[in-house]
Amino acid sequence: MKIEELPRSDAVLAVDVMGADGGVETVIEGCVRARAAGLRAHLKLYGREDEVRTVLEGRDLTGCTVEHAEDVVTMDDKPTRAVRHGKNSSMWAAIGAVKAGKAGGVVSSGNTGALMAMSVLQLRMIEGVDRPAITATWPTVKGQTVVLDVGANVEASAEQLVQFAIMGEAYYAALKGKERPTVGLLNVGEEEAKGHALIREAARILREADPDMDFRGFVEGDDISGGEVDVVVTDGFTGNIALKAAEGTARMIGGWMRQALMTDMRSKAGAFLLGPALQHLKSRMNPSSANGAPLLGLGGLVVKSHGGADADGVASALQIAEDLAVHPFQEQIRSTIAEVNARLAAKDDAANEAAE
Amino acid sequence: MKIEELPRSDAVLAVDVMGADGGVETVIEGCVRARAAGLRAHLKLYGREDEVRTVLEGRDLTGCTVEHAEDVVTMDDKPTRAVRHGKNSSMWAAIGAVKAGKAGGVVSSGNTGALMAMSVLQLRMIEGVDRPAITATWPTVKGQTVVLDVGANVEASAEQLVQFAIMGEAYYAALKGKERPTVGLLNVGEEEAKGHALIREAARILREADPDMDFRGFVEGDDISGGEVDVVVTDGFTGNIALKAAEGTARMIGGWMRQALMTDMRSKAGAFLLGPALQHLKSRMNPSSANGAPLLGLGGLVVKSHGGADADGVASALQIAEDLAVHPFQEQIRSTIAEVNARLAAKDDAANEAAE
Repeated sequence: MKIEELPRSDAVLAVDVMGADGGVETVIEGCVRARAAGLRAHLKLYGREDEVRTVLEGRDLTGCTVEHAEDVVTMDDKPTRAVRHGKNSSMWAAIGAVKAGKAGGVVSSGNTGALMAMSVLQLRMIEGVDRPAITATWPTVKGQTVVLDVGANVEASAEQLVQFAIMGEAYYAALKGKERPTVGLLNVGEEEAKGHALIREAARILREADPDMDFRGFVEGDDISGGEVDVVVTDGFTGNIALKAAEGTARMIGGWMRQALMTDMRSKAGAFLLGPALQHLKSRMNPSSANGAPLLGLGGLVVKSHGGADADGVASALQIAEDLAVHPFQEQIRSTIAEVNARLAAKDDAANEAAE
Repeated sequence: MKIEELPRSDAVLAVDVMGADGGVETVIEGCVRARAAGLRAHLKLYGREDEVRTVLEGRDLTGCTVEHAEDVVTMDDKPTRAVRHGKNSSMWAAIGAVKAGKAGGVVSSGNTGALMAMSVLQLRMIEGVDRPAITATWPTVKGQTVVLDVGANVEASAEQLVQFAIMGEAYYAALKGKERPTVGLLNVGEEEAKGHALIREAARILREADPDMDFRGFVEGDDISGGEVDVVVTDGFTGNIALKAAEGTARMIGGWMRQALMTDMRSKAGAFLLGPALQHLKSRMNPSSANGAPLLGLGGLVVKSHGGADADGVASALQIAEDLAVHPFQEQIRSTIAEVNARLAAKDDAANEAAE
């Protein structure tokens, strides 16, 4: 793409190149790889111009512009502080591009709490959505499952869980092109009577208010990697702990496997023969391939790339952002939330009238 | 051991042989293997006498008596129903043996909810403990970590989390012979300000009320298999979901590994060479080796064996029960809880006096 061609804003991505664990280098190398793999969006790179230009030198990254921002939000910055003092940061400026209609989405590898706080402030929430939710794309025996919330909110009301379900459903449909994704609520048992009152209330509201959803009721912790449903809904406390418990287990088993393959000459020979099969196994266990998760519920597209992601991970996040930027899923969330809230309000009115 | 030798009650285990997924056969085979591996306790086998005798025939199980019980609590029975109508069940009778001082502990593979309800009713709670907690022994890169609660209670107050910490500490010390196990509270971050108000309150109380405990503050989901602390404390909702999410992940990776080893002739040859190393890996990933978890906080020792455990798993649960039955850890829980409650009450009094 030539710089002169003015791209449509939804074909522009604002990239916060600062704040990743691997530095500017990792993010820009991710941009290069995404481009090589077919990414078409114009990229606006937000960061310290001199650093960015140095890294760009010698790299073949067409269709990008550099937007200077003096400050950097660090991983240690408190979200409140970042919002108060971070107006000159690359993160704030990149989100601002989406607000101003100059980009269809923003991708950042920086501090999640700060990204969320700055996004809420600049992009606002979709009407009827209380708080954003962070999604995780979880590998399963059948493919991938989207889990949300995995850490944006430590608590969630029944109504918020319902909002998460609606947002997760629309996101999964956009991500996978599946028309009616299946949705489950994470619980300690599948029976109706299990779990908190709050989670049972969420199930009740969902059944009443969104009859179009393919809601499968409760699912358990092992149903996530079992791929029982496409979308798993939970509060950010439980979701974050479940996700990290699973990641920790995968890491532990990966370590054990490496040990097993290096035990002695015999096992090393076996590992050599297994080479290609192990390579495939390794790629299945590689978190990079699923990196990039939108913060759902905001008035614009914000995609979080894992701070520790490598260049391939960043490339994955950019591709997801491009796919989502041209997809009407934000609009779908907006309309479904409005419909559901209207239906719930009508029911409330009817109940009030009956009571009078 | 000859049947004639009257064993001390703490050297007697009451075994509910009904209710396991694998039937009476699995439980009794588990008893045989435990005995072969060095279990010394006298075993009272509770169940339908004719069934038990049939399975015992031809098996070499010394030092056991059969105690007839007509009824069986099934996996589908609601705890309330089991308690109301299950007085003739093997589960009720086996717990009764502990209550009557005829056994030092009970081992059951049956319905967890029913086991808990029946145990609370017959054995009561340790004074100062509100509700029992179910423990899980979680494999880690460093060994094993005890996690509790993993499902007895869907909610837990700050005070209950403190009780779980005290019980888990005493249990870990008994299980591993470590004098001052490290204890952590499961949270979404390690910083003081992270998580629910409730969990921060629990951390505060623990620091104040049990200064002897080696309390390490908050730990995250991946710190469990990372082996960051010996005892991880959480509510039963979060603990159950984290445990099952991790189990599901391990199962998924195990399946992928089996596929990788069977891809083609080359990988099969590699798998053959890797044989012994893989055997070791498999045993590390085998849940049987850690089967058997006490319900903590009760007025007597109740060990739950996983319903789906194989004979080796049952044998593991029996050995854990024997080890715990002769250990004064129940007494330690009782005294620490009493001390901590006295200290908290004194602080309350002082605060009230200051306020007056």
